[in-house]
Amino acid sequence: MKKHRIVTISREFGSGGRTIGKKLAEELKIPCYDSELIHEIARQSGFAEAYVQRVEESSPTGWAASLFSSNRAFGPTNEDYLWEIQRKVILELAEKGPCVIVGRCADYILRHTADCLTAFIHASMEYRAKRIVEVCGEREQTPEERIREKDKRRAAFHRFYTDMKWGYAKNYRISLDSRALGIAQCVAVLKILY
Amino acid sequence: MKKHRIVTISREFGSGGRTIGKKLAEELKIPCYDSELIHEIARQSGFAEAYVQRVEESSPTGWAASLFSSNRAFGPTNEDYLWEIQRKVILELAEKGPCVIVGRCADYILRHTADCLTAFIHASMEYRAKRIVEVCGEREQTPEERIREKDKRRAAFHRFYTDMKWGYAKNYRISLDSRALGIAQCVAVLKILY
Repeated sequence: MKKHRIVTISREFGSGGRTIGKKLAEELKIPCYDSELIHEIARQSGFAEAYVQRVEESSPTGWAASLFSSNRAFGPTNEDYLWEIQRKVILELAEKGPCVIVGRCADYILRHTADCLTAFIHASMEYRAKRIVEVCGEREQTPEERIREKDKRRAAFHRFYTDMKWGYAKNYRISLDSRALGIAQCVAVLKILY
Repeated sequence: MKKHRIVTISREFGSGGRTIGKKLAEELKIPCYDSELIHEIARQSGFAEAYVQRVEESSPTGWAASLFSSNRAFGPTNEDYLWEIQRKVILELAEKGPCVIVGRCADYILRHTADCLTAFIHASMEYRAKRIVEVCGEREQTPEERIREKDKRRAAFHRFYTDMKWGYAKNYRISLDSRALGIAQCVAVLKILY
């Protein structure tokens, strides 16, 4: 049986991917990097945590996306600089020892790491809408609007930096539907593959 | 824990999906429908088994694909008739009892069956090329050409009849990379979800 040392969790907004990562790390007794990652990227880059947090989820879409890239005629942008730090932090963490890393394109950054289990967690819109209201409460936008926007921005960010099609099964060693299988089963499956 | 009664295996050509389905069914002591399915569709439709076998894998691509659909101006084609029989046979089998069904768009046909575990098996081109030479031997075309052609035709067939994007993680409850995880681990994972 092949074994893994690192698990990366890429996830749709509201799918419970973060919860799965945390529970898995707890059961495996290894660290889970999520907000800790943002803290470290902020520390090494000198940017505020709130800014680091926002970058991945506020990549422009539509006409603004061409501006986002054409910007680069004037040299690397803040996002490019952050991307470099993010890459460095994730490679260092993976080097340091076994861990679970949630989000931040860790799947792509660690794609040449043979013992990295890259996982993608997805779920139906209905389930995710219900879940984000439970977890984050009501907002001015409907939960469906918030999800569609986040999905679009994550996909745009991924496409720009990784050239990977977001949500495509071949990008990951395993993809799981958290609504159909349940959070506990997703954790159990990842655990036996670790 | 949610449990499943039926498993459908959709797979890339050469990924070992069929082997995974057969081993899983053996371990679960339930039937696996693969060539048996073709036999039954042939019996109910009156077409030859070789023809039934070929239809899914010989859907036209490129300019011929528009002909494939525009054909329908003259009424349903043989493929449409076969599709109806295929649908009926798969629904009947799922009704009959627990089983594993390989290929034939069973994932789509059973998409409203709550206790159906829809799985997609994929692997790198390199692995698949090596595997098809081992399993089917050398042909005039290179293994890579054979794979690219089969992939294209399966995707075209799926798109036409199911309107699903082939290879997209959200279509399945679970997607697995058989090269990275190994056949035995794929079987083990599906077994705990059953």
